Amino acid sequence: MKATIERATLLKSLGHVQSVVERRNTIPILSNVLIEAREDNSIRLMATDLDLQVDESVPANVDQPGATTVPAHTLFDIVRKLPEGSQVELDVAEGKMHLSAGRSRFHLSTLPRDDFPVISEGELPTKFELPAATLRQIIDKTRFAISSEETRYYLMGIFLHVADDQLKAAATDGHRLARVVMPKPDGADGMPDVIIPRKCVAELRKLLEEVEGTVEVSLSPTKVRFGLGSAVLTSKLIDGTFPDYNRVIPTANDKLLKLDPKTFASGVDRVSTIASEKTRAVKMSVDRDKVTLSVSSPESGTATEELPADYGSDTIEIGFNARYLLDILGEIEGDTVEVHLADAAAPTLLRENDKSNALYVLMPMRV
Amino acid sequence: MKATIERATLLKSLGHVQSVVERRNTIPILSNVLIEAREDNSIRLMATDLDLQVDESVPANVDQPGATTVPAHTLFDIVRKLPEGSQVELDVAEGKMHLSAGRSRFHLSTLPRDDFPVISEGELPTKFELPAATLRQIIDKTRFAISSEETRYYLMGIFLHVADDQLKAAATDGHRLARVVMPKPDGADGMPDVIIPRKCVAELRKLLEEVEGTVEVSLSPTKVRFGLGSAVLTSKLIDGTFPDYNRVIPTANDKLLKLDPKTFASGVDRVSTIASEKTRAVKMSVDRDKVTLSVSSPESGTATEELPADYGSDTIEIGFNARYLLDILGEIEGDTVEVHLADAAAPTLLRENDKSNALYVLMPMRV
Repeated sequence: MKATIERATLLKSLGHVQSVVERRNTIPILSNVLIEAREDNSIRLMATDLDLQVDESVPANVDQPGATTVPAHTLFDIVRKLPEGSQVELDVAEGKMHLSAGRSRFHLSTLPRDDFPVISEGELPTKFELPAATLRQIIDKTRFAISSEETRYYLMGIFLHVADDQLKAAATDGHRLARVVMPKPDGADGMPDVIIPRKCVAELRKLLEEVEGTVEVSLSPTKVRFGLGSAVLTSKLIDGTFPDYNRVIPTANDKLLKLDPKTFASGVDRVSTIASEKTRAVKMSVDRDKVTLSVSSPESGTATEELPADYGSDTIEIGFNARYLLDILGEIEGDTVEVHLADAAAPTLLRENDKSNALYVLMPMRV
Repeated sequence: MKATIERATLLKSLGHVQSVVERRNTIPILSNVLIEAREDNSIRLMATDLDLQVDESVPANVDQPGATTVPAHTLFDIVRKLPEGSQVELDVAEGKMHLSAGRSRFHLSTLPRDDFPVISEGELPTKFELPAATLRQIIDKTRFAISSEETRYYLMGIFLHVADDQLKAAATDGHRLARVVMPKPDGADGMPDVIIPRKCVAELRKLLEEVEGTVEVSLSPTKVRFGLGSAVLTSKLIDGTFPDYNRVIPTANDKLLKLDPKTFASGVDRVSTIASEKTRAVKMSVDRDKVTLSVSSPESGTATEELPADYGSDTIEIGFNARYLLDILGEIEGDTVEVHLADAAAPTLLRENDKSNALYVLMPMRV
């Protein structure tokens, strides 16, 4: 193969694919990126960790088509350090990739392209489109609740399914739950329930940073593919059953507290400064039209903050993990958050209002 | 004690003192900052790690003078999170410090001010002034060469001494040496040779970020004090003998290579991408008016880059640690660096030109 490509184009694409490549690999070829120069004057870059694969095509001048694989992180670092505006020549001969740009010449070790593992997608019968902005919102409003407990592997991703004629996304770690709903897109009928793994979510979110327009989603019970313009992300799905999360969404919490989410969040952030690293528990004392936040730590002392609020029910005292509360409040966009309380031991519901497409459930802590 | 202080003033000063406080302390009071409200409407803040102490006074409204100590990092975090523009009230009663600002109230545990250890400066007979800009330059051009090997504790700082009617600063780790000279300031006559420890250098550099004008330096054989406006930094000195570094500064290197330090640095940075993490060795092949940089790694491949240069002596091949070379080139300000070579095994001298106040010596590596 022999091709020339602009440094900026190559760098951007390598930036996408190299982050899929793990830093340490026992299988050498998994450290490599597949580079394929094609007759249509494009270069295809591809990286995989066997569960997740990214595949991107970018324009180039191809003199001689061909393909090879070279270490992804090394290539990324080299291209990053090349002078801005330079043209990068790639030339493969005798098992080495020759790279030259300006005054620099590199000879990189290669591994045969035939050894490069490609995830076989199989049939992906469900196909629908989502606006990139919607997909960003789904991820942002749920990903913080994804579990990181290996023993509950089926919670280590975002659950995507169709119910009640809606597309629903949910994540939970057993302490908090985040759920987003939206109108069912055309083509999502009969779609299988899927759990999209954390790493796929993270890489997808990075790619979405640069994409406008729509994303093509294709699904089977075991694989998902996201088409984002020149890049295609394919991932295996988590092979497990997501629990019936509807059971934990409270429907009869009758005490409604309303307050400004930004004031609430900065108050929680401040009083939690003295909370112990381990529990991070903040107590809320809710009284007529006010909330008193407090933390008491045997080592550090006490902290309290009084917030104006809208509340007319019985006085209640309830504790939450400050970190979890801040995660949720950070995703509330308007100037009011509704907190639906039952009692100090019951799951609490948070949402912007009854029209918002996102809701959050938070388990209280004893304080 | 009872006082009110602007949040911004308190935050800035706490920023200075808290970084002296180590994250983990076996002696509890070393985690604390001393706060002293004084009759002249100022608050004094002080922190120490027993070797280094920072002491700063800032304006405040003092209703009742007094002093106490509270956890430095906790106080810093609290003040950082308080709303911008707020007034912070401090009030000490019954072994607690009460802090309030806006809607927030904190009660912090205190330890008695009398338990707070203060470094006794003793006599500091040598006193001179240095422009803040000069002191910044001394630090920037030498600190990267400070050793981090505990077994050679006498190399773990910047050596400051008077010789040949000049003030000289030097640092070395045995692989490279950096030396800066300047005219001897008034008052530096008969000054003891001192080694200023790395942590003091780092804290001093941070404080210098905000200081213009002159810095008062006071010295004894065992202590140093830097007066920087409202802040005073006092440090113990390293109790050891700095080696006679003049012996390693070559005087008869007769091969002179001149090139652009920025082009040189970016070339070294690029070819070193494929160098092994451990050695980071870059080979320089110097020929008539050109330098070829090269790296060869058994795993990754090879890299070469040819640079234009000014050179008329015999061809020479010599290897250097890329990291060390980049550290030095990063401190060369002009558009030429002089590299004085002897042979592949001899210390090499680098400097901007024969008028520059900084010079660097670098030991070669076998390549």
